[in-house]
Amino acid sequence: MAEKFFSEKNLKFTLYDVHNVESLLKHERFSDYNKESFDMVLDTAKNIAVNFMYPLYSEMDKNPPEYTGSTIKVNKAVKEYMLTSGEGGWINATFPPEHGGQQMPLSLFNACMFIFASANYSLSVYPGLISGAASLIYNYGTEELQKKYAEVMVTGRWQGTMALTEPEAGSSLSDVKTSATPTDKGYYLIDGAKTFISAGDHDNAENIVHLMLARVKGAPAGVKGLSLFVVPKYRLTESGALEFNDVNCAGCYHKMGYRGAPIAQLSMGESDDCRGYLVGKENMGLTYMFLMMNEARINVGLGAAAIASAAYYSALEYTKERTQGRNSLEKDPLKPQIPIIEHADIKRMLLQQRAIVEGSLSLMVYAGKLVDLSRISSGEEKEHYELLLELLTPIVKTYPSEMGIVSTSLAIQCLGGYGYSSEFPVEQYMRDARIHPIHEGTTGIQGMDLLGRKVTMKKGAAVKIYLDEIKKTTDEASLYSDLKPYATQLNDALTLWKTVTNGLLGIAAKGEIDLFLADATLYLEFSGIICLAWQWLIQGTAVLKMIQNSPSGSDLNFAEGKLFTMRYFFEYELPKIHGLSIRLKNADGLTLKMKPEFFED
Amino acid sequence: MAEKFFSEKNLKFTLYDVHNVESLLKHERFSDYNKESFDMVLDTAKNIAVNFMYPLYSEMDKNPPEYTGSTIKVNKAVKEYMLTSGEGGWINATFPPEHGGQQMPLSLFNACMFIFASANYSLSVYPGLISGAASLIYNYGTEELQKKYAEVMVTGRWQGTMALTEPEAGSSLSDVKTSATPTDKGYYLIDGAKTFISAGDHDNAENIVHLMLARVKGAPAGVKGLSLFVVPKYRLTESGALEFNDVNCAGCYHKMGYRGAPIAQLSMGESDDCRGYLVGKENMGLTYMFLMMNEARINVGLGAAAIASAAYYSALEYTKERTQGRNSLEKDPLKPQIPIIEHADIKRMLLQQRAIVEGSLSLMVYAGKLVDLSRISSGEEKEHYELLLELLTPIVKTYPSEMGIVSTSLAIQCLGGYGYSSEFPVEQYMRDARIHPIHEGTTGIQGMDLLGRKVTMKKGAAVKIYLDEIKKTTDEASLYSDLKPYATQLNDALTLWKTVTNGLLGIAAKGEIDLFLADATLYLEFSGIICLAWQWLIQGTAVLKMIQNSPSGSDLNFAEGKLFTMRYFFEYELPKIHGLSIRLKNADGLTLKMKPEFFED
Repeated sequence: MAEKFFSEKNLKFTLYDVHNVESLLKHERFSDYNKESFDMVLDTAKNIAVNFMYPLYSEMDKNPPEYTGSTIKVNKAVKEYMLTSGEGGWINATFPPEHGGQQMPLSLFNACMFIFASANYSLSVYPGLISGAASLIYNYGTEELQKKYAEVMVTGRWQGTMALTEPEAGSSLSDVKTSATPTDKGYYLIDGAKTFISAGDHDNAENIVHLMLARVKGAPAGVKGLSLFVVPKYRLTESGALEFNDVNCAGCYHKMGYRGAPIAQLSMGESDDCRGYLVGKENMGLTYMFLMMNEARINVGLGAAAIASAAYYSALEYTKERTQGRNSLEKDPLKPQIPIIEHADIKRMLLQQRAIVEGSLSLMVYAGKLVDLSRISSGEEKEHYELLLELLTPIVKTYPSEMGIVSTSLAIQCLGGYGYSSEFPVEQYMRDARIHPIHEGTTGIQGMDLLGRKVTMKKGAAVKIYLDEIKKTTDEASLYSDLKPYATQLNDALTLWKTVTNGLLGIAAKGEIDLFLADATLYLEFSGIICLAWQWLIQGTAVLKMIQNSPSGSDLNFAEGKLFTMRYFFEYELPKIHGLSIRLKNADGLTLKMKPEFFED
Repeated sequence: MAEKFFSEKNLKFTLYDVHNVESLLKHERFSDYNKESFDMVLDTAKNIAVNFMYPLYSEMDKNPPEYTGSTIKVNKAVKEYMLTSGEGGWINATFPPEHGGQQMPLSLFNACMFIFASANYSLSVYPGLISGAASLIYNYGTEELQKKYAEVMVTGRWQGTMALTEPEAGSSLSDVKTSATPTDKGYYLIDGAKTFISAGDHDNAENIVHLMLARVKGAPAGVKGLSLFVVPKYRLTESGALEFNDVNCAGCYHKMGYRGAPIAQLSMGESDDCRGYLVGKENMGLTYMFLMMNEARINVGLGAAAIASAAYYSALEYTKERTQGRNSLEKDPLKPQIPIIEHADIKRMLLQQRAIVEGSLSLMVYAGKLVDLSRISSGEEKEHYELLLELLTPIVKTYPSEMGIVSTSLAIQCLGGYGYSSEFPVEQYMRDARIHPIHEGTTGIQGMDLLGRKVTMKKGAAVKIYLDEIKKTTDEASLYSDLKPYATQLNDALTLWKTVTNGLLGIAAKGEIDLFLADATLYLEFSGIICLAWQWLIQGTAVLKMIQNSPSGSDLNFAEGKLFTMRYFFEYELPKIHGLSIRLKNADGLTLKMKPEFFED
């Protein structure tokens, strides 16, 4: 391909060598697949990404969605992409056959999503949103809703959305005010406003089907009173015609990046004629949503890692070609300049990007595999995988999101002034990357989720599973003398993690919940670094196994590079936990004691 | 003012209480000034910033410069701003009277620059560039050049530029290829191309006067063969008319941010008729430029801190008004939501921004004061200030630049989805901030400058002065029981700094220069954090002195807030040095051993 935005070699290495997704194939659920069909799926995804998606990447940024007064005009190619995704079975790929899907393992599907998102993140979200919305209908909706809505959605003709956020209810979903008044006609009348709805309206879909949280009149306050509704922009009449459903697009946001996708403001029920169709039972809305949330959050992490991947390969390409300066020992200015990739500081920046990209990808594939494993198991084993995924989800979402900013910024730095210019793609990658710590639960929310909910759930059962899994990794890695020092480093880091965690849990035990959670964001950062070190050790072990087959040429270079990147992570990234641990051990409550009026000046 | 983008209270506190710039007034050079005139100058700057500059901030971003084929069209207000700056004496404010200036202390002038840059960074650079260029002419140019060019430039009618960078000579100035052929008519014929020239051409100035590095035919290779020329777009004929000087604007870059200022590509001598007028002596070009470089680099740090200031006040305002969520102990969803500034994580993010902004500003004012002190002293004392400034310059340039990205990104995070929207100003601040680690020497270049040149110069004389200055601070702070723990922390940090530095110097002593410099960027980060802790301790000491006067109301809140921010710095930022020191003590040469081909995949 002309421009490289992901590494096929690394993706396959991560799937097959690092996480052995082939092992899933022995289970009946995935018995239609084999390694060849896996590779074919990846090839197909690559073709779409290279030939269709990437060429639109810059264009969609330069011509962002515009509100027309009633809908949002988006790039015309969106329609083709949605339909292609529907025809290719990408929208419902992971759905079971009874829901029209191919029951594709999520680990494979996510690898494809990584390819798509690295080619054109904004474009990739349109079908992704349909998928999430349709899945909710299939899982919890009536057969009628499935037939009338979900079945059309997965063709790519109708856009699906997740409509949670309101002007006064962003991070605080308990404050959702959109109301649903029951009628005797089987539907509810919806009244309210939603905001920041991704693909919440646009002119490249025949219909927009919102999976919307609303509060049935008389329902309890807070999140316990939220119900889930199908709220289409156009409802189906009995004759099968489309009829406007009083879902009004009130505007769209212009954004720093991620500009290929429209983020809409919606107003429902302006003419008291917005009908919502209940999904599942009343007051269960958030429970249903949360069952989708883990996957939605994996998607965010995946998107962030994918954008960082594209930026990394742009930077890599540039640093190989751009000549500037000489070796620090070379004093003769008449000697030719060298490619900047030969400078240590450039290599450091490239290694950091690679460590973030490939470490994150490894974690994303692992998270997908946990979903797959939970789907093919039952009882305690199923719970084992589910708990581990629950625990990891805040890290899966946040590490790539936060470090994606750092990584794309480093890509800019590698290009210098050119990196800051719109004539090169990397500045767009940084702008695109900036969304991820915000949507699907901000970093602050994820930190509180990890520390306040996940670490403590089921009396720490998830933590125990996590530590056991890491122990398996360090035990195996310790068999290789090259890896033993890193296994030791990881074990030391875990000891520190336990000390910090126990210290914080001690505060919680005293009932000082505010103090316990005050630095939850830093705790998430701290935990994320260690988790990524674990993923790097898993990768390092896979490399040492691969090296036993005496690779040569580009395979050997890849293996060497992978090991250097692992070492980079342990030598440059992992030490950051020491600074963080100093803070996390200090329960001085500084941010609690800081009064808002002290910011006056 | 409607929108706050800087704190007048903090700026005055930093000038008067923290760095006692009034002490400069007793010197003859600044005897025309007093505290009242200082305040008047600041007031005037504030008026310009509030009434003229800030209202153009978003507009100039949304309508960036466009290349017309021969020049670059910029916002029409630029002309008025340049002329206003000229009339108000801002362009030559710091020049001595014999060069038409007011001999304003740089510390005061920089405070004004901070105000301007926080209002509208892009707009602020136009006169700033004139100032630097005119100063070079006044300092090293002939009287004729001063009369013909500099005197018009300082009126704001003619733009000045610093034209160093070429397509193949960015970080590596020794590769400048633009040539200067002597003639017998007193001028040189210039031939070559320049790129990334800030305000390198635009339609709001009657003329563009480049202070350009070029190589006289036959001059030595490398930086030793660079000469400095005045190369105007229009040269003055003997009759005083303007005549095209064959300086062709070949295009402009579209940029991620900093979009109010045009960054030009230039081509000189396409018709073999581009005349350059030598400034000073041949082959002394870089020496002259470097004498300006410290101030230019202070300006970059100042600009970065100013942008972070504006973003911080946007975030602060928003978090006071936006309600979302409840205290973590509050379980009743019917209770009203609270302003998000009451959440610990938001306060942490605000404190981090404030710590970066006010810590950086303190360092900038200090750096300006060092320039002032060097100008009013001589002999050893002068050298003392100059050495200290030389040592600090890479930090002065880089800390605000790198942390400005972090700080503006935090401002976005405080606003959530709104922060990512162009309808709010913070996303622009982050885009604007991203330029600073690139221009005037990238962060990588600054790291090598600090470790490879400044730490070792004059056998470590600058380091000794620096450590003595810090000792004065810690000794004074230790007199206050509230500050003593922080003085101890700073001393411990310095011990670590010395250990790390000596370790690195040991490598240099063995001649392993590549290894010595491999992690220079991290060494700069490490040193920067400690330097800022010092600035925060100076500020803390000033607060404790102020508290002795029993302040009340907003003064007391300010004092309390300042102390909390100092504590924040010591408790959250300073510990980061421990992770960095682990890496910096490890001389494994990882990035040197990583071969470019290992990035293949």
